[in-house]
Amino acid sequence: MNITVQKVLAIYSALVFAGFASAQTTDPLPSWNDGDAKQSIVQFVAKVSKPGGTDHVAPAERIAVFDNDGTLWSEQPIYFQLAFARDRVKALAPMHPEWKDTEPFKAVLEDDLKKALAGGEHALLELMMATHAGNTTEEFSHIVADWLATARHPKTNRPYTDMVYQPMLELLAYLRANGFKTYIVSGGGIEFMRPWAEAVYGIPPEQVIGSSIKTRFELRDGKPVLVRLPEINFIDDKAGKPVAINQHIGRRPIAAFGNSDGDLEMLQWTITGSGARFGLLVHHTDAKREWAYDRASSIGRLDKALDEARARGWTVVDMKRDWKVIYPFEKR
Amino acid sequence: MNITVQKVLAIYSALVFAGFASAQTTDPLPSWNDGDAKQSIVQFVAKVSKPGGTDHVAPAERIAVFDNDGTLWSEQPIYFQLAFARDRVKALAPMHPEWKDTEPFKAVLEDDLKKALAGGEHALLELMMATHAGNTTEEFSHIVADWLATARHPKTNRPYTDMVYQPMLELLAYLRANGFKTYIVSGGGIEFMRPWAEAVYGIPPEQVIGSSIKTRFELRDGKPVLVRLPEINFIDDKAGKPVAINQHIGRRPIAAFGNSDGDLEMLQWTITGSGARFGLLVHHTDAKREWAYDRASSIGRLDKALDEARARGWTVVDMKRDWKVIYPFEKR
Repeated sequence: MNITVQKVLAIYSALVFAGFASAQTTDPLPSWNDGDAKQSIVQFVAKVSKPGGTDHVAPAERIAVFDNDGTLWSEQPIYFQLAFARDRVKALAPMHPEWKDTEPFKAVLEDDLKKALAGGEHALLELMMATHAGNTTEEFSHIVADWLATARHPKTNRPYTDMVYQPMLELLAYLRANGFKTYIVSGGGIEFMRPWAEAVYGIPPEQVIGSSIKTRFELRDGKPVLVRLPEINFIDDKAGKPVAINQHIGRRPIAAFGNSDGDLEMLQWTITGSGARFGLLVHHTDAKREWAYDRASSIGRLDKALDEARARGWTVVDMKRDWKVIYPFEKR
Repeated sequence: MNITVQKVLAIYSALVFAGFASAQTTDPLPSWNDGDAKQSIVQFVAKVSKPGGTDHVAPAERIAVFDNDGTLWSEQPIYFQLAFARDRVKALAPMHPEWKDTEPFKAVLEDDLKKALAGGEHALLELMMATHAGNTTEEFSHIVADWLATARHPKTNRPYTDMVYQPMLELLAYLRANGFKTYIVSGGGIEFMRPWAEAVYGIPPEQVIGSSIKTRFELRDGKPVLVRLPEINFIDDKAGKPVAINQHIGRRPIAAFGNSDGDLEMLQWTITGSGARFGLLVHHTDAKREWAYDRASSIGRLDKALDEARARGWTVVDMKRDWKVIYPFEKR
């Protein structure tokens, strides 16, 4: 019987060791090339999650915040939510014959988005309100889901939700596997992102923060609804991001991930807390596989934040150099 | 050897059975008297958490929302946050000599809160802004914590955070043990509750929703702070509660707990979703151990919501009849 027990233990040990060795050698970030960016991530995660370590952070405080446009999915040639607004104008046009002669709608219907947006912030606001308000929260959620099911990106001819960054999906999963709670903190619409963020990123609705319009509680035939009003509630961009983080989370994140000057204040707020901190910018350097743009771009301009990242030693991802693949579909 | 194995299995089975039996007989709500209220809670939790049951709800959708004042802790003789504001006026008075001759501050300094509030909403707003704004979010958090450490309730002479309801603490723990995520959705200040809600209720900052003033991101000597501004951001009461729930959580709760007409819309919003739903009102019926008030009270008025609860079959807790103890300190 002793021999049997020893045999069983030996087999068991072999299995455990195999599992351990395999865990040690499985790369949690396979789409990241070895280099400073990947190394900085792995080192940060290791030090904050090491029990008893000097930089250990309690799991409840392991909050990581991610910008969305240009950080988790592409944002060219136009913000995807703007493509949604454009398609909604076209879908709603039969009910608005006056749009044929009214800017910015006229230009949108003539497929001249540049002209439509020449009216600046006011034109953009008019487009957003006409296409995002006037329905209930549940109706809007269905409208977004329906659009995503059929709309295709002009460059890849794929659904917009295919154009998420494979390396960032791995990063989200890696952080969560190490006890982090991952949040989106985006200038995009909170109710535009929530219908698909869980399926695509594994981020549940309550961890999606974004810009919003006001809503009003109403009883319709005795049934409560929340009606989306044509009135800005909050713009979750630039200095608004730390404000929204405080409002929604009530803790200061220990890691922040962005790609543009719109993320600068979020990174400053995150980085300057006490204890171990991590900041990362995605630099769009790959004109061939994705897009290359930074200081001069009107979409996702990265200028001041790039200077500050270099001055303060934040991690800057060089997309071309650091990422083996960009999109999940490249792997198939 | 067979005998040994049998013995081991017998002992193991006995242990497992003992554990099972003990789990079966340990009452998760020991401070609740047996009755309709307790029974309705236990039945609801059992049916939504039973795997494969017709009323099963996925854990991610098990969202429970709780009002705070009068639902999780007492709210008499004045809302505890108003006691905080009063004490802050007194603490800040030396820096505001003009308050000696200016209402509503003059009345507060003369300990005549009733007179101070005779000025209505405007007076209340002035008091709140003078005592809640003008500092950073971190400073305010410390101010609240310091106040709670020393302030005492006029009736019990205990810290305000001792005056939470033992049966509700058990209910919060019971729901969480069954996969629920518990949220506070209160008319009280979000940043007034967050500093202590986790220690007292087990509810982390990101699950505390409340009224708020605006904040502004600022760099002070290069260090980012969020400055609390004397301007209302959101009033999380009545029809504002479903709006805030949607903004913060983005899912419709399946259970809601309140005590006043301020919670009516939150209960309506919760109850009318599809699938199994639960609504509960705490009715303050115990003048001896706590307070007795409802339709005629200016604090925590329960009138329309009580009618609707009875018409729709929501659970109404009769505090005097349903709760064995009110406060945790009664048990010691």
